[in-house]
Amino acid sequence: MATRLSTREDYVSLLDKYDTWLFDCDGVLWQGDTLVEGATEVLQLLRHHKKAVMFVTNNATKSRKNYKKKFDTLGVEAHVDEIYGSAFAAAVYISSVMKMPKDKKVYVIGMDGLEEELRDEGIAYLGGTDPEDNTLASFSLKNWTPDPTVGAVLCGLDTSINYTKLSKAFNYLLRNEGCTFLATNEDSTYPTAEGLLPGAGSVSAPLRYALGKDPVAIGKPKGTMLDCIKAKWVSHDFDPKRTIMVGDRLNTDIEFGKAGGLATLLVLTGITKESEITGPNASPTVPDYVTNSIGDLRALLS
Amino acid sequence: MATRLSTREDYVSLLDKYDTWLFDCDGVLWQGDTLVEGATEVLQLLRHHKKAVMFVTNNATKSRKNYKKKFDTLGVEAHVDEIYGSAFAAAVYISSVMKMPKDKKVYVIGMDGLEEELRDEGIAYLGGTDPEDNTLASFSLKNWTPDPTVGAVLCGLDTSINYTKLSKAFNYLLRNEGCTFLATNEDSTYPTAEGLLPGAGSVSAPLRYALGKDPVAIGKPKGTMLDCIKAKWVSHDFDPKRTIMVGDRLNTDIEFGKAGGLATLLVLTGITKESEITGPNASPTVPDYVTNSIGDLRALLS
Repeated sequence: MATRLSTREDYVSLLDKYDTWLFDCDGVLWQGDTLVEGATEVLQLLRHHKKAVMFVTNNATKSRKNYKKKFDTLGVEAHVDEIYGSAFAAAVYISSVMKMPKDKKVYVIGMDGLEEELRDEGIAYLGGTDPEDNTLASFSLKNWTPDPTVGAVLCGLDTSINYTKLSKAFNYLLRNEGCTFLATNEDSTYPTAEGLLPGAGSVSAPLRYALGKDPVAIGKPKGTMLDCIKAKWVSHDFDPKRTIMVGDRLNTDIEFGKAGGLATLLVLTGITKESEITGPNASPTVPDYVTNSIGDLRALLS
Repeated sequence: MATRLSTREDYVSLLDKYDTWLFDCDGVLWQGDTLVEGATEVLQLLRHHKKAVMFVTNNATKSRKNYKKKFDTLGVEAHVDEIYGSAFAAAVYISSVMKMPKDKKVYVIGMDGLEEELRDEGIAYLGGTDPEDNTLASFSLKNWTPDPTVGAVLCGLDTSINYTKLSKAFNYLLRNEGCTFLATNEDSTYPTAEGLLPGAGSVSAPLRYALGKDPVAIGKPKGTMLDCIKAKWVSHDFDPKRTIMVGDRLNTDIEFGKAGGLATLLVLTGITKESEITGPNASPTVPDYVTNSIGDLRALLS
């Protein structure tokens, strides 16, 4: 059973227990382009108390640099090295975990943010935003010269998804020996201010179905994302027992925290509704703490 | 264990046992644009012996009229009412089984052949080949006015698949009460002369994943296709015990025949390889008969 936070003492106790605070962004700090009330003050308060603050997002359409612009626009303090996106984590996974040889390339289904992270890690790629692959013209294997050096297919949310990209990615995975199937994340849906759209997991679903196998998924709830945070933030003494993950999705954020041995705080300003955590149909994924909004932590200021 | 056919007597016995012969086309009668050697003579022979001949295809990109043109080009006798495609069967399903009210519409992910079959059954539709939905421009729910009369989403192979179509289809299934999720067929791959491409099942996979539910699938191996043949071919005395399904795919053609109580003949000129039907890793789907090629039935001529 999750502990419901409501009094000033509840939040004081939370502040005492955790040194590192990991935040999901959309649905926690903001909703679309609107800041959640009090989010800025709460982050300032955590920084004032010398807490380490990190932003952990499955959004792979933006690079960290571009994601920081979103913080800047909304007036939220954030530094590039505090931002962990699944695009960045995927690039780190390819270079540091897979240790893909430098003469190999990645075929990308994804957007410019994903390409930027690959470039920053020195990984060669094709596909992605290449105009040749962003077309609704009919695709035939007859007119295609596959690149034998493609050693991985990396699939993220791509709003220019099309049959040419899917056909090329499928054939690389089918023909190139040892070609690894990677996905930035497996979110089934992508929340926008006006409602849900198909998410990154839905964009890779055709490959999953055609191949009859699942990709190595990088983003939350998978541990790869936490490995990446630990590997990159070497200067910081990372103690899972003193770390809390704050999120709005049970099946990504909260499961990610629990799998990594972190404490978890669910906020109700995003995807998860009250009805999913109470009553007979409650989800089996139970966060340690629940509060209505991150803004509730302003109780600490009074 | 499948009976391996090889002698003239084997084929004579087969000819005696079955009055109705159902054929898959690609991989059986032709491979891409090349006729399988002897296919024309064998079909003529069956017609000469007063056998009923039907062509049962999961290809939903072509209407029956257009599919007949393929037969004409290759010099194979076929009549429109002998051709049963999953596009036609889907249209019959919507009008005769679902009995969708005339004031409702179908949102189509698919190509002009699917639209033609819907028109011929008097079913209103949107999406499909509409230029507005065949775009790689970014899609936002903000700029979209959904049609409240959409009562079904029908998804077939669509080589112009894109994020706008997927987003609209997903939102119709999410928002329009009672909106039915239909797929022409669930083939994971689409064979071409140069190799495999993603199939119709892969095109509907994003919706399946985003919704967390499967469509009602019409094509082989589902019985809906056989129901459609029985319903439309009323003049013909259809006896499953005297009917044989000839195909090249275990998981579509052969399972379709078995599920419908028909005899099944596997040919090895298409998807299924010898290794999949013999030895320790053989598929659990066992056809009644196996022969290398439909052309083998020319032994009857000697």
